[in-house]
Amino acid sequence: MGVGKRLLVVAACILAAPAAPGAFAQDGGNVSSKSQSCLMCHKRATPNIVASWSRSRMAQVTPAEALKKPEPQRRISVDKAPEGMAESVVGCAECHTMKPDSHGDSFAHQGFEVHTVVSPQDCAACHPVEQQQFAQNIMHEAYGNLQDNAVYADLVKAANGPLSFAGRKLSQKAPDARTNADSCLFCHGTRLEVEEMASRDTDFGPMEFPVISGWPNQGVGRINPDGSKGSCSACHSRHQFAIEMARKPYTCGQCHKGPDVPAYKVYKVSKHSNIVDSLAQSGDWDFSAVPWTVGEDFTAPTCATCHVSKVASPDGRIRAERTHRMNDRLGWRIFGLIYAHAHPKSPDTAKIENKNGLPLPTALDGTPASEYLISGKEREERIGAMKAVCGSCHSGSWVDGHFERFAHTIETTNNQTRVATEIMQEAWKQGAASAADSLFNEALERRWVEQWLFYGNSVRFASAMMGADYGVFANGRWEESKNPHAMLEGLLQKLKAAEK
Amino acid sequence: MGVGKRLLVVAACILAAPAAPGAFAQDGGNVSSKSQSCLMCHKRATPNIVASWSRSRMAQVTPAEALKKPEPQRRISVDKAPEGMAESVVGCAECHTMKPDSHGDSFAHQGFEVHTVVSPQDCAACHPVEQQQFAQNIMHEAYGNLQDNAVYADLVKAANGPLSFAGRKLSQKAPDARTNADSCLFCHGTRLEVEEMASRDTDFGPMEFPVISGWPNQGVGRINPDGSKGSCSACHSRHQFAIEMARKPYTCGQCHKGPDVPAYKVYKVSKHSNIVDSLAQSGDWDFSAVPWTVGEDFTAPTCATCHVSKVASPDGRIRAERTHRMNDRLGWRIFGLIYAHAHPKSPDTAKIENKNGLPLPTALDGTPASEYLISGKEREERIGAMKAVCGSCHSGSWVDGHFERFAHTIETTNNQTRVATEIMQEAWKQGAASAADSLFNEALERRWVEQWLFYGNSVRFASAMMGADYGVFANGRWEESKNPHAMLEGLLQKLKAAEK
Amino acid sequence: MGVGKRLLVVAACILAAPAAPGAFAQDGGNVSSKSQSCLMCHKRATPNIVASWSRSRMAQVTPAEALKKPEPQRRISVDKAPEGMAESVVGCAECHTMKPDSHGDSFAHQGFEVHTVVSPQDCAACHPVEQQQFAQNIMHEAYGNLQDNAVYADLVKAANGPLSFAGRKLSQKAPDARTNADSCLFCHGTRLEVEEMASRDTDFGPMEFPVISGWPNQGVGRINPDGSKGSCSACHSRHQFAIEMARKPYTCGQCHKGPDVPAYKVYKVSKHSNIVDSLAQSGDWDFSAVPWTVGEDFTAPTCATCHVSKVASPDGRIRAERTHRMNDRLGWRIFGLIYAHAHPKSPDTAKIENKNGLPLPTALDGTPASEYLISGKEREERIGAMKAVCGSCHSGSWVDGHFERFAHTIETTNNQTRVATEIMQEAWKQGAASAADSLFNEALERRWVEQWLFYGNSVRFASAMMGADYGVFANGRWEESKNPHAMLEGLLQKLKAAEK
Repeated sequence: MGVGKRLLVVAACILAAPAAPGAFAQDGGNVSSKSQSCLMCHKRATPNIVASWSRSRMAQVTPAEALKKPEPQRRISVDKAPEGMAESVVGCAECHTMKPDSHGDSFAHQGFEVHTVVSPQDCAACHPVEQQQFAQNIMHEAYGNLQDNAVYADLVKAANGPLSFAGRKLSQKAPDARTNADSCLFCHGTRLEVEEMASRDTDFGPMEFPVISGWPNQGVGRINPDGSKGSCSACHSRHQFAIEMARKPYTCGQCHKGPDVPAYKVYKVSKHSNIVDSLAQSGDWDFSAVPWTVGEDFTAPTCATCHVSKVASPDGRIRAERTHRMNDRLGWRIFGLIYAHAHPKSPDTAKIENKNGLPLPTALDGTPASEYLISGKEREERIGAMKAVCGSCHSGSWVDGHFERFAHTIETTNNQTRVATEIMQEAWKQGAASAADSLFNEALERRWVEQWLFYGNSVRFASAMMGADYGVFANGRWEESKNPHAMLEGLLQKLKAAEK
Repeated sequence: MGVGKRLLVVAACILAAPAAPGAFAQDGGNVSSKSQSCLMCHKRATPNIVASWSRSRMAQVTPAEALKKPEPQRRISVDKAPEGMAESVVGCAECHTMKPDSHGDSFAHQGFEVHTVVSPQDCAACHPVEQQQFAQNIMHEAYGNLQDNAVYADLVKAANGPLSFAGRKLSQKAPDARTNADSCLFCHGTRLEVEEMASRDTDFGPMEFPVISGWPNQGVGRINPDGSKGSCSACHSRHQFAIEMARKPYTCGQCHKGPDVPAYKVYKVSKHSNIVDSLAQSGDWDFSAVPWTVGEDFTAPTCATCHVSKVASPDGRIRAERTHRMNDRLGWRIFGLIYAHAHPKSPDTAKIENKNGLPLPTALDGTPASEYLISGKEREERIGAMKAVCGSCHSGSWVDGHFERFAHTIETTNNQTRVATEIMQEAWKQGAASAADSLFNEALERRWVEQWLFYGNSVRFASAMMGADYGVFANGRWEESKNPHAMLEGLLQKLKAAEK
Repeated sequence: MGVGKRLLVVAACILAAPAAPGAFAQDGGNVSSKSQSCLMCHKRATPNIVASWSRSRMAQVTPAEALKKPEPQRRISVDKAPEGMAESVVGCAECHTMKPDSHGDSFAHQGFEVHTVVSPQDCAACHPVEQQQFAQNIMHEAYGNLQDNAVYADLVKAANGPLSFAGRKLSQKAPDARTNADSCLFCHGTRLEVEEMASRDTDFGPMEFPVISGWPNQGVGRINPDGSKGSCSACHSRHQFAIEMARKPYTCGQCHKGPDVPAYKVYKVSKHSNIVDSLAQSGDWDFSAVPWTVGEDFTAPTCATCHVSKVASPDGRIRAERTHRMNDRLGWRIFGLIYAHAHPKSPDTAKIENKNGLPLPTALDGTPASEYLISGKEREERIGAMKAVCGSCHSGSWVDGHFERFAHTIETTNNQTRVATEIMQEAWKQGAASAADSLFNEALERRWVEQWLFYGNSVRFASAMMGADYGVFANGRWEESKNPHAMLEGLLQKLKAAEK
């Protein structure tokens, strides 16, 4: 579009959008002229995107100002602002027109080359350290870890595939991309690809926009049109990007709530959460301070406190460094696949191979695929880093007692998984189920999946975060003990029926 | 009671109730003399009813003042105040003594004809538009839609009926009214009927009050003693009637939380809810403003935003009109009965008849009872109305991508329901279950019910509101695929046992 | 450690801990010199324990000042302050060095005899009435009621015991102490016993601390090293001990959330909770006032309002006395064991014996062990005490209607439990299950447990608190009716298989 046509549309915007009562303070201030062009129409077209952004720190502080803050208060991790971006606040154009050539979804829009999908690579212009840490986070690989692992892909199929029934038999096809996008990949991230350009009616007449398959999505491991992975807005919700939001447990709860990974639910019955829920609204907690000072800004932890945030003591000492590789303070991976195990060395878990030749971190008998997993030494170091956070509020004997009990629970839950697996193996051996087609598609196999994916995990999360209900009756030890009995009963019936 | 006796009781109140420390501002102000009489004793007898009311807008603004507000700020939908009610705030007597003759539960109380149950017909004195809209809402018919539909009544029986066991057989009687009132009708609404007058001890001596069967209840489709239907206090909790309460998701969560209709739970894992939970307490959100301006009053939606409220842009344009016919922005009815389908034309769904002759909006094979359902054109119009709300915060490509994916999920969940139904039909055909007595009472039939009532619904709600957990493991696609396998296994065992 | 060495460590603290930016107001004020010694190091070692405490009322008000408050505002229940404690605020040393000889976990620490575990006996120095009431509370006996009751201990084993599988048979050993501590005893309380002294590295060099088995734990029935029972911090979270926390529902939700006792979840779908969630943050609610005045401090109840708190009317009348025997306003024990029943007379329930000779408050056919349970008269008195609370906000006809419906639901849920028990008894009689080894370990028995422990309980809690979802589909009547059908199907299959 030529400048002439562009001016025409901008003029239409001016005519269409009278001075809004809620006009935000940044109008015409430190907002770049490019972003002002965006705002002119988008205040009308998508008013809350503008409003949310105008409440953000990025709309209020220029990179140059941000760089004046000394460590450890600094929130930006470059030494100097990106070329040409120092003196304007970070607005629409700064992100959505950054490096247009690298973005497969860039398109001509009102005279600019705009891309819909802002990627971690864009955010890294000012926050490279965070992006690099996140690239080491297992979530960064969440797409491939699920889709490129034949075992997990088969589990996805068992959940999502369309069924059909004929001749007293059920069969299941592979799920299509939209179904996966609406389920597993909602959190894991979709693959975004521009399919075509299409015309769309807008407040300002028809315009051309890209149609992107897999869109919308904000999954942590999203494959972006610029080839990068992840989505910062998974946790730092657009367009306010409030650090207080990422620090509140609701953010983690978006993806860590189901029976497979009930971290949020477990947290909510913990004393930690009780204190947060009861006292954080009292007005003297600050969820935005950097660093985050225990005893001053808050008196009980959220998910971020223990796993991500830069936590300081009131005397200014840093108790824990900020990390976006979120298992830096985690020794064990308690999400059992199929047993709990030491964390994988690499975030890319699809390349792990256990002794059975399967891409799983543990074998069916529980043997860890040790060469792919962190050493006992590193495991203890990570637990030590976590204990430093615990120590803000708990004595050493408390903390050690907790971690010893937790380690014991990892052992005992792995035992219950082993027993269920032995029943399953007996079923496979006796022909009462078939492992040949899939490990997960039959009724008995599905019960077995729940043993480790629901019950083992629930008990371990409960132990890790002291959320007792999930350790007993809420998908906890009660189910963990009941399920093998139900599995065995099912197996015996099948064997008896086959006998005759 | 004569005036003399009435004065005597009022005198007793005065003696009994010393000036309360928390006496509210309205005492003696614009409160009508009738309501002042009520307050005199009820400040002592039921102090929190008085206190809650005194915090309400109705206790602070007279209808005459309310009428001075221009549209779209106005909260009252008459052109002039009801006769004689303009200059007093709306107090006890205004509602509880309105049109006494029309209320079957009116009784003589301290010289007034008082009715216990304030009905939508009473509220319509000032809010007729809202009442008329609600009368078109499917909730308005929630009592009859359940009780007068033989299929659903049978499902109620299967859940609520008292069991007995004899001769290795279970039988189940129809549930009694109190059990239904304590379960389904708690939300659907009970039928309120005056049984008798009974004397009751009070702070001021014995008095006569009506005994009302089905009371207490605040269900949305309640049958009131004045013949009207519904209960405004289902959402507008007595006696503060705060609009902010109706706009917060907790209100909807009262009835939309169970596995059959997990709307609230799905919402709580959505990014929308995350933003609300993280930021709404920050002090700059306003849940009471009329109209409700996106970007100024709030930056993320609650249930009401999308389904009910009058939503404005910061430039004053109305993005969505207020509606108490709450499916005005809903194309699909995703609550599967037994399949998801286009919304019924009439709120009275008991008269629908599918091609099998059953009062269901879809046949067992999925064919919709189209003549009772809205057309494709109206469905698209309603979806368009919803998209106008989405457009406050999301681009067109986001919104369209979302709705396409959602439509696809409606199809795929209907497929999984169809497969489970085919297994069920095979069971009925082979005599492994009997449809003759009931569709819902046997073990296998109950599993089938969960296929569409729990799992299909959960997946669709998750898709509609982007609450991923419920799309996969939290009663989602995992269960949706597992359940037919369990059903089939049960069927095959029965058939095998019968063979021999 | 001699005074010399102690001074050395304190000096090290002084050197190590520069003036903290968040130094709290109490420094050097009314803090006893002993507590000042503690603070000197612990501000650095465990800063948030100090910070939380400094926000507490105990850090700000001396016992002498607290005694100046007249009833009913007083929060301390002695007539005079404990010897020597009147003029200092209650700090570290006041609690952690109280009566060192009585504490099995006292140890020499920096010149003081310190004990880790502050017990209710310590708190009773200033709060004896509360401690005495709590000693009559069933929770006080939560450890022994579970562990010393052979039937319940067997249920614990069925949930927690490690399984093994051999010869197509499952067997289960008794669970170890750490597993129980990580599950049932997390809420019930562990037995704390000093095992040994061990050296631990600290910020100030190595020191000796006791290793306490069962630690950490804050369960309500914890067996403390001083022989006392319970843990005040179960509800009054350390070290802020905010009454507002104990009054908010999250506190109760820590232990009352699972499917066996879904009180919190039921509450959250109630209108009571809706009002609290929607309005309590508005700024004009006060969760700390003593007494707690309905209509002034709050307009809808939390758990504490109905069960524990001293509730006043705005005119100053006390509607309900504070009680830490939390069933003072409860007629029925709706936690079915296995049927709902009148509350036990004594908090120590392990000594109850039903007509079958089992330590259960009801027999398998429902007959109550009446001599151990409160009389009908006392039951009605307790319900009357609760109704006085209800009456703040509800008319008598509302309240009576509610309680009649609730009583009916107790009957009907007991019926459904009876039917499930009859099926179970038939299974035991026919040899399809064995009661000889355990009532709870087989697949069929486990289903039976869920009938009363999950479903019967859920329905009754839902009825008691008007949380409808749990009365129908959320582990409610639907499951209560479905489960016996599934049990019967399982039984018939077993019998058929045995026949052949």
